[in-house]
Amino acid sequence: MDYAKVSLDKHYEWKGKIEVALRAPVDSSEALSLAYTPGVAQPCLEIQKDINKSYELTRRWNTVAVVTDGTAVLGLGDIGPEAGMPVMEGKCALFKAFGDVDAFPLCVRSKDVDEIVKTISLLLGSFGGINLEDISAPRCFEIEEKLKKVSDIPIFHDDQHGTAVITLAGLMNALKVVGKNIEDIKIVTSGAGAAGIAIIKLLMAMGLKHVIMTDRKGAIYEGREGLNPIKEEMAKITNFDKEKGTLADVIKGADVFIGVSAPGTLTQDMVRSMAKDPIIFACANPTPEIFPDEAKAAGAAVVSTGRSDYPNQINNVLCFPGIFRGALDVRASEINDEMKIAAAKAIASLVSDEELCADYILPKAFDPRVKEAVATATAKAARETGVARI
Amino acid sequence: MDYAKVSLDKHYEWKGKIEVALRAPVDSSEALSLAYTPGVAQPCLEIQKDINKSYELTRRWNTVAVVTDGTAVLGLGDIGPEAGMPVMEGKCALFKAFGDVDAFPLCVRSKDVDEIVKTISLLLGSFGGINLEDISAPRCFEIEEKLKKVSDIPIFHDDQHGTAVITLAGLMNALKVVGKNIEDIKIVTSGAGAAGIAIIKLLMAMGLKHVIMTDRKGAIYEGREGLNPIKEEMAKITNFDKEKGTLADVIKGADVFIGVSAPGTLTQDMVRSMAKDPIIFACANPTPEIFPDEAKAAGAAVVSTGRSDYPNQINNVLCFPGIFRGALDVRASEINDEMKIAAAKAIASLVSDEELCADYILPKAFDPRVKEAVATATAKAARETGVARI
Repeated sequence: MDYAKVSLDKHYEWKGKIEVALRAPVDSSEALSLAYTPGVAQPCLEIQKDINKSYELTRRWNTVAVVTDGTAVLGLGDIGPEAGMPVMEGKCALFKAFGDVDAFPLCVRSKDVDEIVKTISLLLGSFGGINLEDISAPRCFEIEEKLKKVSDIPIFHDDQHGTAVITLAGLMNALKVVGKNIEDIKIVTSGAGAAGIAIIKLLMAMGLKHVIMTDRKGAIYEGREGLNPIKEEMAKITNFDKEKGTLADVIKGADVFIGVSAPGTLTQDMVRSMAKDPIIFACANPTPEIFPDEAKAAGAAVVSTGRSDYPNQINNVLCFPGIFRGALDVRASEINDEMKIAAAKAIASLVSDEELCADYILPKAFDPRVKEAVATATAKAARETGVARI
Repeated sequence: MDYAKVSLDKHYEWKGKIEVALRAPVDSSEALSLAYTPGVAQPCLEIQKDINKSYELTRRWNTVAVVTDGTAVLGLGDIGPEAGMPVMEGKCALFKAFGDVDAFPLCVRSKDVDEIVKTISLLLGSFGGINLEDISAPRCFEIEEKLKKVSDIPIFHDDQHGTAVITLAGLMNALKVVGKNIEDIKIVTSGAGAAGIAIIKLLMAMGLKHVIMTDRKGAIYEGREGLNPIKEEMAKITNFDKEKGTLADVIKGADVFIGVSAPGTLTQDMVRSMAKDPIIFACANPTPEIFPDEAKAAGAAVVSTGRSDYPNQINNVLCFPGIFRGALDVRASEINDEMKIAAAKAIASLVSDEELCADYILPKAFDPRVKEAVATATAKAARETGVARI
């Protein structure tokens, strides 16, 4: 199918992929008096007395804002807030379909970190959570960090943390397939943007020790000239031997490759230079760093991509609807690492030991068990870490 | 019925009066590829090329933000943004039920005019229109004025302009009942807040000349000490004889009383002091400035209130859904006086000459003709005044 053409036609036909629907009747004078004036004064007064009642008397308990500034939309880059809207509407549709979450898209006409933070912070009272989306690095880190400081509801940048959760889930099962432990392996990344950094941080929280991140200029090491603050921070906690050189140089002997970069970055020769049974996560979208058949021909034991037409798709839809479902269900004040790890384990556990193999390390996007499993695990971890409020 | 109690119970049951619903299928891998990646890239690129396509390829064409800061919610006053949400959700429900408009509530955690303006202005690309709601005067004027200067979509403060449109519609028919012309009459108001000022401005745009506004300190006249800027502005264009004194003093000989103030402000003696066949709009809610039976006993020819249990209800639901429907249908860049007057005339015209009488000057809220009539008239006026974009 020519997805570009058919999708465009469909978008003209849909005229919007989400809409607002009524939950309360307003079809008679009496109904109006209950849903609106004069009756509505009473729920207002209840919330005025106790602001937490906003989670019981309005839709806040189930409502998430999907916020972008349009600077890193899909692989398209900085296309502007209005042009980002089709993706945001799509995201909101997925939130509803896969998580029963009411998500609403807000595309912000600013690229200024503080303006974006201020705008979102003033709207926190209308939502139960904020999903940041397609905001370019390193601004996305700053925005997330600053927002978290002022927010009483979860702030979750899906491009970072959703991707990290699925990658962790996939890696846990891939390591089972090849019989290695996360504490012992060496990982090399291609890409040190939002997703790459979030993945490595979460893997390190799970026990990963040996990792070298690379960007367009090669290996990132402490003291490299011109690193931005977030890469500088990563340089301090990775690449302890301060290895230098290109991806081809530092990938030698690595157990795992994680690509969140550009098509064709990984060659068969590089795969051949890795340790025994290499695991390849080639997540550039839609064209991966290496295609699965090429990687396998060069000796890869497990290959994962962002594509639905190959096995082991890294698909955030496995994660964000259930994570937010769980967070909202317990009125979590944040989504912390423990909740993300719990979600990753829940996803990984849906592949049974009998099913687990090189071509099946992750459940399918439409596996009906995913939402419940992820939500339950996330909610439980929220309670255990003291961020649940009910 | 005990509306307060039943409404509260219902709100606990509804857990939100609106929700987000899907318009595009995302129930299969292929559907996902069209509504989301990779297909969605194409509509994004189309909007990047031509931003107006956001009105065709996303829900923007039909989406309105209902924005409050929670400072003047119903008659409850400054109860805060979260506590205002039940009203905003109710408003959004009315937008959908009466205008087929997708409205979404945003309650802003700020009372600072510039912060609120900035916040809304950064979100304009996500909406086709902005409905300001329950923002206290005189901040509401400032916010509206500043927003209009930067906005490419309609900004409409319903508490001002919706009320003004319905009052104009009612007054046109009430004047027919008593056989008077708007150019000749004298109007006295009780109340000089957002609604009162908007009403008088719109009536003056329709030809009203003689008007005295009063507030808690009595008649407003040029030179009165301590007037805020907006009242000062009104003092310059009203009360040309600089009459002073209380409402009781200045209402003598007036043809019309418009109350947007407090219960019981208008006495029977005051009604008796008015000109022949006085028209009384007693819109304080839920308890009017004078009850209809008292006003009639004192000689009132036509009485209108904000209540649904008396004839001639001033109900904004007659106006804002159709006005926004019409504005959105022609992608209007603003909602100007001509559009408001056209809406008022359309509403008034739904009462036929045969039906018109003292107890029937306005159509009922549930009259199915209202939406279409108001939308058509508003859209036509938008075209005629050059603010329609399609």
